[in-house]
Amino acid sequence: MSKGAMNLSKKVEPLPEEFDPKEIVSPVALELNGVLEECAEKKREIVLGRNVHTMCYTISEPEADDDDTGEREAYMASVLARYRKSLIERTKHHLGYPYNLDFDYGALSQLQHFSINNLGDPFIESNYGVHSRQFEVGVLDWFARLWELDKNEYWGYITNCGTEGNLHGILVGREVFPDGILYASRESHYSVFKAAKMYRMECVKVATLVSGEIDCADFERKLLLNKDKPAIVNVNIGTTVKGAVDDLDLVIETLEKTGFSGQFYIHCDGALFGLMMPFVKRAPKVTFKKPIDSVSVSGHKFVGCPMPCGVQITRLKNINVLSNNVEYLASRDATIMGSRNGHAPIFLWYTLNRKGYKGFQKEVQKCLRNAHYLKDRLVEAGVSAMLNELSSTVVLERPKYEDFVRRWQLACEGNIAHVVVMPNVTIEKLDCFLDELIRSRSSWYGDGESRPPCVAADIGEENCCCDEHSKSAN
Amino acid sequence: MSKGAMNLSKKVEPLPEEFDPKEIVSPVALELNGVLEECAEKKREIVLGRNVHTMCYTISEPEADDDDTGEREAYMASVLARYRKSLIERTKHHLGYPYNLDFDYGALSQLQHFSINNLGDPFIESNYGVHSRQFEVGVLDWFARLWELDKNEYWGYITNCGTEGNLHGILVGREVFPDGILYASRESHYSVFKAAKMYRMECVKVATLVSGEIDCADFERKLLLNKDKPAIVNVNIGTTVKGAVDDLDLVIETLEKTGFSGQFYIHCDGALFGLMMPFVKRAPKVTFKKPIDSVSVSGHKFVGCPMPCGVQITRLKNINVLSNNVEYLASRDATIMGSRNGHAPIFLWYTLNRKGYKGFQKEVQKCLRNAHYLKDRLVEAGVSAMLNELSSTVVLERPKYEDFVRRWQLACEGNIAHVVVMPNVTIEKLDCFLDELIRSRSSWYGDGESRPPCVAADIGEENCCCDEHSKSAN
Repeated sequence: MSKGAMNLSKKVEPLPEEFDPKEIVSPVALELNGVLEECAEKKREIVLGRNVHTMCYTISEPEADDDDTGEREAYMASVLARYRKSLIERTKHHLGYPYNLDFDYGALSQLQHFSINNLGDPFIESNYGVHSRQFEVGVLDWFARLWELDKNEYWGYITNCGTEGNLHGILVGREVFPDGILYASRESHYSVFKAAKMYRMECVKVATLVSGEIDCADFERKLLLNKDKPAIVNVNIGTTVKGAVDDLDLVIETLEKTGFSGQFYIHCDGALFGLMMPFVKRAPKVTFKKPIDSVSVSGHKFVGCPMPCGVQITRLKNINVLSNNVEYLASRDATIMGSRNGHAPIFLWYTLNRKGYKGFQKEVQKCLRNAHYLKDRLVEAGVSAMLNELSSTVVLERPKYEDFVRRWQLACEGNIAHVVVMPNVTIEKLDCFLDELIRSRSSWYGDGESRPPCVAADIGEENCCCDEHSKSAN
Repeated sequence: MSKGAMNLSKKVEPLPEEFDPKEIVSPVALELNGVLEECAEKKREIVLGRNVHTMCYTISEPEADDDDTGEREAYMASVLARYRKSLIERTKHHLGYPYNLDFDYGALSQLQHFSINNLGDPFIESNYGVHSRQFEVGVLDWFARLWELDKNEYWGYITNCGTEGNLHGILVGREVFPDGILYASRESHYSVFKAAKMYRMECVKVATLVSGEIDCADFERKLLLNKDKPAIVNVNIGTTVKGAVDDLDLVIETLEKTGFSGQFYIHCDGALFGLMMPFVKRAPKVTFKKPIDSVSVSGHKFVGCPMPCGVQITRLKNINVLSNNVEYLASRDATIMGSRNGHAPIFLWYTLNRKGYKGFQKEVQKCLRNAHYLKDRLVEAGVSAMLNELSSTVVLERPKYEDFVRRWQLACEGNIAHVVVMPNVTIEKLDCFLDELIRSRSSWYGDGESRPPCVAADIGEENCCCDEHSKSAN
């Protein structure tokens, strides 16, 4: 617990009169916070459902003379300046999450003074005039065109994040098929299973191949066990951990040959690759010309945006199922959230307009190229690594120590970690990471006592460089 | 449909090569957009589930020489400048929504360059380092203290909006009592009923008094009909339309005398007043010293924030019900969303730190004073109006014409409209509104043929100034 947090009186206090302005965090405590945070890296423990105050900037009551002395302003400015410095540092050393951190929205800073809110449906104007629907609809049109759904046949909105997209897609699926069963590969994003629990839906987990793709043989078996109920299927266009792309065509074929024609709803979770895939040659196309029903994608990932956001596109006729019965959602709209951030659509509009489809194509190519570079260098150095063909997510053995993982902000699962090569990840940054990793590994494993983990179960024997599998390969 | 939108080719196009850069919206089209938007005010039609493109800024593919000519940048700058102008205008004429538009976050504009994301649980650090949990936890502590819940006994997070708070509170309630019935007054926010449908919960609507408060006699009757199942109760701390505050003490008393002790969960939807009430003398206190389970409040309303956000506080032991079973949400956290906007907590932290509890107290007093002023002047002028004792929401007869409603961005329901007096609503602004309303009314109703609507059913005979009720009052 930080000094600042400890300063907070232990018991709950009644209202204003009894506040002690001395509780303000002093610059010294801040310094300590910084130190404590460093320490925390080493012995962090993840416990669900505990509100551990590892560090916090306590809010304290202003003193009566604060306006005159300017001390409060000075204190807040110092907190913010330190925070900004840490953001720069952390943004620099960041490889594990698929966020494009390379953006310049200087032209939009003038809009921060407005409370922009796209309440409810993007296509129904609310009386609240401070909105950005004209930008939002422009962005939606762009995505509908990308995924080949006619302007008069789509409905959609800009969400708060990929999770909201999945929550929405699966909810629409449930309304179209109220007794439908949700099928999702076990490597699907956790929000898919969260949705099933929230919505009280029956959910069947489908096995995956080593690549991370859905195993359609297992899918077929499970469909045949439940032929009496419609299928609501989550298809991953890029899984979270391995960047694996489910074979959409094979999923559809499997549904059709098991007799589910007309009795299925497909939601494509395209969190990251939904936007990259259309620009990758040979990739099975995500398009509404195929019998899919909704696609969601994150806006803060490949596009890059200061805050999380996403795009949700679905067939208008599905939304009509909801809205034919206005009572259904007891609201004038078919979104999950009510108030919606009106800044996000402007950020997206700005970037899409500047880069265009062609600009994105170039960036996708660069990412794939850099991802191959990283994977090749890892393999050369004897580090277990895998890169799916259509992906820019490089999976590698988990670095031995947590401080290394934290420094590079790698996302880990079991024995593997991954690096997501985004447009802001340059060859220079990768070289810096590689050099550090290779140097660290020789100190971790140089003595011969401790050895790198076996990751054959995660990424296949052919990609595993552990002692056993590298030997058998020779 | 605007010229800009019409420029979009009708059918869906394949990828980049075929894009026509001529599709860019020309300045002339923009001019037209402005005009068309004005017209739209008059003949707007609300149709659910239709994606009507009333107006949109089309995104077009950049030309090859855009970087050299600078034309694209110039075009985008012109769109943004016009948009900014319209935002200033709309922000000025805004009375109907409870958003405090009076804020200056200039000091925070430096942070817009960072992709700040508080993925998952505020109390569990994720490996993604570019977060603002230290600010978020500071804000949560402040609210937990306001509502008198000990630091070690609460759990919470900063949400995307009031709706997410309600979705969360009701979900936790359902997990605590899986077969519980949701009770909510019929004037509850629509997100409460949306939650019931999403979660497949049985939901009982309770009648309201004329003031808008829950009718506890009806509540009692309905509880007695369902004594075999636990009760999950939504209590409104300020209804959306009338600003009515449900009598929390009476709700608890009703639950206890009908034998529901230990068999109920109370969620307080404090969207707006959850933050104002603690500062109103004589108001029944919202406090966790009473047997309530969760409170949600919006951050963009009374506090003021450029984007929608909210605060959710619940008892830690309730969250343990979820998290004891980690599989439950299939995630490491108990939030609804996954990625979460990391800027919002900093905005809240900044304002709370500057104003303090005392600052809010002053603003609440000012709002209540100004609301009384508005209500008194309306009554003097013979306009039907009502103001609940603990509220700053003034309910009045709906203005006859939609263009007046839109100009002042009033929220309407049936024959009534309301003005929410927020800190940015000054006496000058109210005078301007009143003068315009009174002048307009004399032109609407001066000829004696058309008469103001009767709103006795909505706000009570004593507050209705229609011909019949004003006569009977004399």
